[in-house]
Amino acid sequence: MKPSNKLKILNDPIYGFITIPNSIIFDLIEHPFFQRLRRISQMGLSYLVYPGAHHTRFHHAIGCMHLMQKAIQVLRFKGVKISEEEEKALCIAILLHDIGHGPFSHAMEHSIVSGVSHEEISLLFMQELNAEFNDDLTLAIQIFKGKYHRKFMLQLISSQIDMDRADYLKRDSFYTGVSEGNINSERLITMLHVKDDHLVIEDKGIYSIEKFLVARRLMYWQVYLHKTSLVAEQLLIRVLKRAKELVKNGVKLQASKPLSFFLENEITLNEFNSDCLETFAKLDDYDIVSAMKNWQYHDDFVLKNLCDMIINRHLLKVKIKKKPIKQDVLDNHKKTLQQKHSISDHEANYFVFTGQISNQAYTRKKQNINILYKNGKVEDIVKASDQLNLKALSKTVTKYYICYPKDKL
Amino acid sequence: MKPSNKLKILNDPIYGFITIPNSIIFDLIEHPFFQRLRRISQMGLSYLVYPGAHHTRFHHAIGCMHLMQKAIQVLRFKGVKISEEEEKALCIAILLHDIGHGPFSHAMEHSIVSGVSHEEISLLFMQELNAEFNDDLTLAIQIFKGKYHRKFMLQLISSQIDMDRADYLKRDSFYTGVSEGNINSERLITMLHVKDDHLVIEDKGIYSIEKFLVARRLMYWQVYLHKTSLVAEQLLIRVLKRAKELVKNGVKLQASKPLSFFLENEITLNEFNSDCLETFAKLDDYDIVSAMKNWQYHDDFVLKNLCDMIINRHLLKVKIKKKPIKQDVLDNHKKTLQQKHSISDHEANYFVFTGQISNQAYTRKKQNINILYKNGKVEDIVKASDQLNLKALSKTVTKYYICYPKDKL
Amino acid sequence: MKPSNKLKILNDPIYGFITIPNSIIFDLIEHPFFQRLRRISQMGLSYLVYPGAHHTRFHHAIGCMHLMQKAIQVLRFKGVKISEEEEKALCIAILLHDIGHGPFSHAMEHSIVSGVSHEEISLLFMQELNAEFNDDLTLAIQIFKGKYHRKFMLQLISSQIDMDRADYLKRDSFYTGVSEGNINSERLITMLHVKDDHLVIEDKGIYSIEKFLVARRLMYWQVYLHKTSLVAEQLLIRVLKRAKELVKNGVKLQASKPLSFFLENEITLNEFNSDCLETFAKLDDYDIVSAMKNWQYHDDFVLKNLCDMIINRHLLKVKIKKKPIKQDVLDNHKKTLQQKHSISDHEANYFVFTGQISNQAYTRKKQNINILYKNGKVEDIVKASDQLNLKALSKTVTKYYICYPKDKL
Amino acid sequence: MKPSNKLKILNDPIYGFITIPNSIIFDLIEHPFFQRLRRISQMGLSYLVYPGAHHTRFHHAIGCMHLMQKAIQVLRFKGVKISEEEEKALCIAILLHDIGHGPFSHAMEHSIVSGVSHEEISLLFMQELNAEFNDDLTLAIQIFKGKYHRKFMLQLISSQIDMDRADYLKRDSFYTGVSEGNINSERLITMLHVKDDHLVIEDKGIYSIEKFLVARRLMYWQVYLHKTSLVAEQLLIRVLKRAKELVKNGVKLQASKPLSFFLENEITLNEFNSDCLETFAKLDDYDIVSAMKNWQYHDDFVLKNLCDMIINRHLLKVKIKKKPIKQDVLDNHKKTLQQKHSISDHEANYFVFTGQISNQAYTRKKQNINILYKNGKVEDIVKASDQLNLKALSKTVTKYYICYPKDKL
Repeated sequence: MKPSNKLKILNDPIYGFITIPNSIIFDLIEHPFFQRLRRISQMGLSYLVYPGAHHTRFHHAIGCMHLMQKAIQVLRFKGVKISEEEEKALCIAILLHDIGHGPFSHAMEHSIVSGVSHEEISLLFMQELNAEFNDDLTLAIQIFKGKYHRKFMLQLISSQIDMDRADYLKRDSFYTGVSEGNINSERLITMLHVKDDHLVIEDKGIYSIEKFLVARRLMYWQVYLHKTSLVAEQLLIRVLKRAKELVKNGVKLQASKPLSFFLENEITLNEFNSDCLETFAKLDDYDIVSAMKNWQYHDDFVLKNLCDMIINRHLLKVKIKKKPIKQDVLDNHKKTLQQKHSISDHEANYFVFTGQISNQAYTRKKQNINILYKNGKVEDIVKASDQLNLKALSKTVTKYYICYPKDKL
Repeated sequence: MKPSNKLKILNDPIYGFITIPNSIIFDLIEHPFFQRLRRISQMGLSYLVYPGAHHTRFHHAIGCMHLMQKAIQVLRFKGVKISEEEEKALCIAILLHDIGHGPFSHAMEHSIVSGVSHEEISLLFMQELNAEFNDDLTLAIQIFKGKYHRKFMLQLISSQIDMDRADYLKRDSFYTGVSEGNINSERLITMLHVKDDHLVIEDKGIYSIEKFLVARRLMYWQVYLHKTSLVAEQLLIRVLKRAKELVKNGVKLQASKPLSFFLENEITLNEFNSDCLETFAKLDDYDIVSAMKNWQYHDDFVLKNLCDMIINRHLLKVKIKKKPIKQDVLDNHKKTLQQKHSISDHEANYFVFTGQISNQAYTRKKQNINILYKNGKVEDIVKASDQLNLKALSKTVTKYYICYPKDKL
Repeated sequence: MKPSNKLKILNDPIYGFITIPNSIIFDLIEHPFFQRLRRISQMGLSYLVYPGAHHTRFHHAIGCMHLMQKAIQVLRFKGVKISEEEEKALCIAILLHDIGHGPFSHAMEHSIVSGVSHEEISLLFMQELNAEFNDDLTLAIQIFKGKYHRKFMLQLISSQIDMDRADYLKRDSFYTGVSEGNINSERLITMLHVKDDHLVIEDKGIYSIEKFLVARRLMYWQVYLHKTSLVAEQLLIRVLKRAKELVKNGVKLQASKPLSFFLENEITLNEFNSDCLETFAKLDDYDIVSAMKNWQYHDDFVLKNLCDMIINRHLLKVKIKKKPIKQDVLDNHKKTLQQKHSISDHEANYFVFTGQISNQAYTRKKQNINILYKNGKVEDIVKASDQLNLKALSKTVTKYYICYPKDKL
Repeated sequence: MKPSNKLKILNDPIYGFITIPNSIIFDLIEHPFFQRLRRISQMGLSYLVYPGAHHTRFHHAIGCMHLMQKAIQVLRFKGVKISEEEEKALCIAILLHDIGHGPFSHAMEHSIVSGVSHEEISLLFMQELNAEFNDDLTLAIQIFKGKYHRKFMLQLISSQIDMDRADYLKRDSFYTGVSEGNINSERLITMLHVKDDHLVIEDKGIYSIEKFLVARRLMYWQVYLHKTSLVAEQLLIRVLKRAKELVKNGVKLQASKPLSFFLENEITLNEFNSDCLETFAKLDDYDIVSAMKNWQYHDDFVLKNLCDMIINRHLLKVKIKKKPIKQDVLDNHKKTLQQKHSISDHEANYFVFTGQISNQAYTRKKQNINILYKNGKVEDIVKASDQLNLKALSKTVTKYYICYPKDKL
């Protein structure tokens, strides 16, 4: 299973070609844990709005690894010492940083394995793989956990200008066709530097960072939090919640073995042992969609209708407001539904609900973005900018939504 | 379910925006028969080679419809009369021309519903929809069946320069990242004309057509018939064949209801009634992948291993040759496998087999491409070209392959 | 000279194809006044920094006209009545809106024809052409002058979201390769609407407008006001100023006839008669560059060195600061130069000078951008935005620069 | 003038960023001989057809140098030893390979310096620079002259798959907007290898080469030999021919000094000394266009009209035929013109003339393209291809044209 000594390359519509740098990366990609990512949509159900957005976690992870190679090359060019060992570890860590994602990425965290984050599961996967690969992942794990003494390395993997964002913003913009969200990852990387063990951006990159933050903000409101994606994700979360509820009440539900396991058991981080991980590793979008295709013919009014809505794409109506939704508006929609179908209040809550969404384009508190001047001085980008708009962008924006059935239900 | 009178637009990474021209097109897209295409991969298992190639039949069908609108606009500009009724019918016909595809597109035709082509099933779907839509699809069906008196209209849907090819070559090139396969659909369409009721290309488009044919040839050999795609598709066909075989022998196999139906019944075109179509409409890639994920743990040596190969992507070895594979080469590989696993000859055939692939870049006999000169003369492109290379491209190229297990099996 | 009834199309690397809509547009493009724009660089001397930026005013003007056609199509689709006469006038007005630009666009206004803006000269050209084209441009001129009763039409030509900006930002970003400056003109146009005779943007376009303003800001600071472009333009202005000065003092300078005319005569708007316009129409980048190529061997120390700097691209050193340059810094540089070359203070001023640059990403006072909500309400974008960053962007940013010779002089 | 130790990068719309690898390359680019290329159009007068095609020899030369760096990186990866000295020489040689081009590139060779090719002048420039740069260009010159023992190095600079073509096809396609001519230079380079000291292409690249050759063929007929470009170039050649003729007859013509020199003197390769080269180095597109702008008002009927045709773009009519133009057709057009203007036969020949154009997509005789199989075998691409179309493409195609005045003259 060793890769030959030939140039292993992958076609990528975005970067042209991606080179697999060495045999451990190759072997990790070949591993069933990683191949599973081919069956997990990067953007959840967003393809219901953007029909091109069927790209996967697999593709994204490899894209990140590609950008990491570029970043290492740029930093070395500027005199930052990075050993071959560290390079390998950085590539492994970014490749696996999201391997813990469950089906439909984020929806899963709020339903199936509630209380365990995908980062924690990523770490479990890395440890399992480390055992299998004779401790070859030890340094990668150290960096990923923030335990390595060179702090900037973690920042390449997880910060406000990490290789994760550099890839996903570009990739999601590409596949959705929302070209305003496109960022110039190549240029951003060209301007990376390290100062006092922290990742910084050279001062000539100020406008690019500003643009990057605005593009990210646009992607959040226009794509990730698009009202149709939002309602689809909320429905998906409710499908799984209802399924768990029914199972707990002794109702029989057809589902794949791994999905049944997670419907029947409430798993906490402590119980997430090797067997459990093995089962988790068998779970992907296909289990969920197949279950929903089946459940749309189930007897339960709630489950049936939720599944039908997603599978045949006649979703709930959704409205987004700047102010919290008033209780009586919510109540009215529920009353209408209950009168029509004589369902309980608890059941009606599955179809009529409110919530809030929020986004902060730039966070000043945590891992802020620093600008490096030619004279060696370092300054937070908000201060470095010649205008106050970045300060404005560091305020959190919150919006409120309500979902309720269309005429069809 | 009526679309509002607003500009209904879809984001498309390739064309920018796609406009839904009218309410019947909108309603057809909303229909579960069509929404199903969201769950059918346009390029089958090619994403195992090209990780970006997860686009769907849904997206392609809408892309074709978009190009059809452009073609109609160009032809009208040049004085070709096309009524609103005909325009609507053309858009419907191209939108639905591939609706009969089963899971993983082409693999299905050689396994699940053998003996019934996807075009025939497309027609069944159209007729079913026609009943539901108060005969609004009658003209579209006439054109699709070649029964309409204006012959060029069928050529826009099905010929060597139809809107289907104009979209899929561009789209597949885009999503695979094989940029050499990219064609300039917009320019090709700009050069369309109609002469004596036949679709022709204006003479200044000769080099573009030549380039189009060479791009198509490249896509065939480098992408569609890529050896890894090829072996994956062959494995998929064999999974379904084996599954049918086992079911016939009374072995119980877990599968979704629609998949079970087609595993248990051999359906011919005559038996393809409305109920059967309804069941077929519930079948998509998710049924197949979920089944394989389950079957990889089945007791049957053949089924288990075939499924495992696809799901975890350690496929058979494949070699492509210019000459037919010799019998003794085949026999040797089979013998090696049988010695290792003590399986029957019949079982070994699932893992060691040969076949042939062929492609003809340009077909002169059927629906040839005609060039229109400024003086009104029309000539086959092979004659019109100033070089003999198009003549050369109209020869069929055949290659031969052999597949056999790697060390792992 | 009438265009045939064929589809007249132009290749454009940005939009694919541009169609010439009718014969008057065709004839205007053919006119020597307009052909002249082929010889005027859109971005002045920016190609000294961005080697790809050799695109011309000709190309930009046609690009604007293309976007105008799109905008008209979108507005009509939304029910805004625009007559064929108005459509023609809008296309003419945008095509000719910049025809009054002199060589190297903006540099000219500050040297050759100081005191007469390019807009005023554009109007003179339009009036001249109107006479030649039998008053066919009357409505276009009315719109351009703001005298037409439908005010939104002028806004399509000149406002903060006009077709001029929609093209030049996209085009300049494309040709410089500064991809962060790229804007999605197509999407912006899709969101245009007219309310109470004013151009507005539908509310779903808020984030796109924000992105557009930030992209524009980035282009200003990173491209248009790039320090090397800045110094090149300042040198060019000084070349022409010095040349005029020498001519006034009786020094003989080789130059083309039209250039000599403008060096010898100080023309005000009143004196800009038909003959003068005819001479102006013969002036383009080639006259200036050819003159400088010649003048780099002239006896005059100032003229010779200024020309040499531009032609052989060893420009002055330039520093950009957030605060005004102190007088003694300026004086020191001048002293150094005067000691080295024993030139007068007046002469030294040509090589050592300061100045300021400023940009306002969004102007609230004049032609502000209004957002149209679904309920019909209209609001300034600054208020409509969910964050304060647009307010921040409406503050003017000013920077200060100093230029002085490198070692070479 | 030394470059700092910073990463010197240039924006390129095609490759994103181009890095200047070392200080001698930097200094060569800064040299006035090279800066001159900023004022020479890469595609001559093609911008009269493709308004975006204003890119320069300067940009192309730097693009080639960029691709050379990539090629060296790929070859080294595959184990081909290339020393740092050789790398520098290869970059210099490709950077300067076209430095000998005169104004409007090819037109010049047939008029101003007839009998001296641009390659010969490139060599003269290199030798001149070598003296100035302390023999740092010696190895580059050796490679360029084919005198270096490692033959594949010349093939990187000049062969059917050299870096020159890899850049100009991509660049010309990009700037004209003729996207069918686009080639995937990156992929081609990825497939380069060296076998027995010859540049070869790995066998998996066969279809890409085929596509490259067809794209090149398309660019020739559709762009480089586009009938309008063709007639513009022919007119330009005749302008210079007529100017020389007039000068020889004692007529006074206004022109820049360097242009006057070449109009007055017939220079052969032997006479091309250092002074002459210095004068040549001052000649660029601006001298020619400025002269034509002036000469359009000259008394000479021929010169005046030829210049006017180019400057104001009302060119001669041109027809392209598969067979030679018959003498009587030519004679008739001449007669018509002579009757109208009472000019001599010699003068009429400037406006009515025939000629032929030809192109061979692939040349088998000289520097053929060889395919390297995995087993080490090497084969000419024509044989290696699975179809005969490449054989067909190696036939020369010839076409014939006639030019004559439109009504306007």
